[in-house]
Amino acid sequence: MQAMWVRMAAGMLLSVGLAAPSQAQQVRADTLIKWRQSAYQVMTWSTSRIRANVEGQFNRDEVIRAAQLLNSLANAGMGTLYPTGTESGSGWHETTVRPELFRNQALVAERAGALARETGAMLNLAASGDVPAIKAQYGRLVQACKNCHEDLKFRE
Amino acid sequence: MQAMWVRMAAGMLLSVGLAAPSQAQQVRADTLIKWRQSAYQVMTWSTSRIRANVEGQFNRDEVIRAAQLLNSLANAGMGTLYPTGTESGSGWHETTVRPELFRNQALVAERAGALARETGAMLNLAASGDVPAIKAQYGRLVQACKNCHEDLKFRE
Repeated sequence: MQAMWVRMAAGMLLSVGLAAPSQAQQVRADTLIKWRQSAYQVMTWSTSRIRANVEGQFNRDEVIRAAQLLNSLANAGMGTLYPTGTESGSGWHETTVRPELFRNQALVAERAGALARETGAMLNLAASGDVPAIKAQYGRLVQACKNCHEDLKFRE
Repeated sequence: MQAMWVRMAAGMLLSVGLAAPSQAQQVRADTLIKWRQSAYQVMTWSTSRIRANVEGQFNRDEVIRAAQLLNSLANAGMGTLYPTGTESGSGWHETTVRPELFRNQALVAERAGALARETGAMLNLAASGDVPAIKAQYGRLVQACKNCHEDLKFRE
């Protein structure tokens, strides 16, 4: 694949003068797309682990680890992986992100905040070992995922 | 790609009787390989963010977020992504894992523990805003990554 650099890099370097470029400005677009596609896979791993635990043999430590990882991802600032210049391009595969994600920042912020609230609640519940409560929270967490995919019409 | 299921699943189900299968036994080998390849990409994202911050403009919150994510990954129990039956196969691409990783569990545990110690130390330092200390810890963290790749001769 032809290397594609984030288009804003040169302009931003000029406009900010001596300030060092942020990571997103230094990294190739295809790498950023690969990282965000990877992050969603790690979310899928983690939510699947929680589901396997509430539907099968429950291992409290495993649910805590999965919830900790999910909550860290939800609060990692994944928005930095979507700079201008990454609306199209390939990471592991051609991005499936829709233009809405770059155009409606208020909705993105609302949906990202909702995800972080649900992962935080899951982390708080994980240590309890209260399987029915964790199962109910799993449903709310997955709903937060679905809301974002539906409203912003993207999947990575 | 031909679907390949984790080979131990059937045997394990018989041997453990009524116990529910663990996640690794329920999930296809190619999915487990994709998840572990993704997890290393998220580690690369996070270490790259820390490097960008210590070499350029320092943003304490961003370093904390990256360190939190790294530490969550290092403690997530990624060993569960390497069950018997995943020595070969494709996730995002053909796995590059070497047989050593499945044969020398003592070394795997030692290297995994070393990584978790370094990510924990990074997380403790992140809030300090002490850039030289974070930079030094970044070096130790990357060395822990390299040790594992060299000793176990794998990269995902």
